[in-house]
Amino acid sequence: MRMETAEPLKSRTRNDTRARLVHVGTEILSEKGFTSTGLEEILEKAEVPKGSFYHYFGSKAKFGFAVIDNYEYLWAQKLTRLLRDPAVPPLERIDNYISEGVRGLEKYAFRRGCLIGNMGQEMAALDEEFRFRILKVFASWADYLGDCLAEAKQRADLPADFDVGEAARFFWFAWEGAVLQAKLERSVAPIERFRRVMFKYVLTGA
Amino acid sequence: MRMETAEPLKSRTRNDTRARLVHVGTEILSEKGFTSTGLEEILEKAEVPKGSFYHYFGSKAKFGFAVIDNYEYLWAQKLTRLLRDPAVPPLERIDNYISEGVRGLEKYAFRRGCLIGNMGQEMAALDEEFRFRILKVFASWADYLGDCLAEAKQRADLPADFDVGEAARFFWFAWEGAVLQAKLERSVAPIERFRRVMFKYVLTGA
Repeated sequence: MRMETAEPLKSRTRNDTRARLVHVGTEILSEKGFTSTGLEEILEKAEVPKGSFYHYFGSKAKFGFAVIDNYEYLWAQKLTRLLRDPAVPPLERIDNYISEGVRGLEKYAFRRGCLIGNMGQEMAALDEEFRFRILKVFASWADYLGDCLAEAKQRADLPADFDVGEAARFFWFAWEGAVLQAKLERSVAPIERFRRVMFKYVLTGA
Repeated sequence: MRMETAEPLKSRTRNDTRARLVHVGTEILSEKGFTSTGLEEILEKAEVPKGSFYHYFGSKAKFGFAVIDNYEYLWAQKLTRLLRDPAVPPLERIDNYISEGVRGLEKYAFRRGCLIGNMGQEMAALDEEFRFRILKVFASWADYLGDCLAEAKQRADLPADFDVGEAARFFWFAWEGAVLQAKLERSVAPIERFRRVMFKYVLTGA
């Protein structure tokens, strides 16, 4: 019995410690970015000793990549849930995504922004490898949104000459700019402005 | 004679040292932001001893405000020159502003972005006073652009129901997002995408 439970327990503990570090890292990096986050802060919040951290990750940079992997995975779920929902018309799905973003900003009192956006801004201080990794995440988001816009175009909710790829990329960097401005103003006003301008001028059949 | 020249020379040196620190700070903070820039790096590049720095600024935060003052002043000149040029139609002035931004990004090999955007992203790590100061700079930029858009509307280059204030604010945060993405991609493609989408969908008479 003891041997049978020991291994699963041990491996559960190992996975828990690693997962807790990644979870805490995702939270803190969404607020402060990578460079200005000290390792001590992560260890303290996760209640994990430094030795454990290095056992799982080897370096702060490798930890950063694990946090990006986790964030990408969480966002892939969120974008799948919101932007691929066949029961909702495609442009309404995008509106729902924006509404969920508004709620997220309010929930965390405008402290948390986009982890990928935060790290993207730190490029001067980060490794080239981070740059490629972050571009890959942005490209995958443009794909999710592009698919949704292509559906809208197919339904004639967008004009026949609408450039889906161009609009999807534009959407994301304007979104990142809006999130930053919302954090700065501590108000959802920039996100609501983003929503109004996007739907009035860009994502419109007129 | 000696007494007459001594004072001006001394004061010229004093102003030069302070100005050099602010100039170097503006360059470095446009690349790396405030938090991840060490004082040593600024002192070394400006070739100024630490004592001098504290003599002029007292603290890194006060230096940060002096750099923002300088950046705001430089941008007020740039926006006046480009967005108030009576010889150029208002929407073309905005196009010119974007072109100058493209040249600036290329000139500094995509290392330098917007100092105000950079510092805006660091809010989690910075003082409340910085937040208000940065919002004030953004508000002044929205005013410059809003005036230009109002002129375009008056000439019927924009529709009669065009919301100038809303579009001006949207323009700036989408611009900040585009600059960040350009730095990340090391390409002007995001800026050109910004330009195309803005002029095709938002800044258009249709």
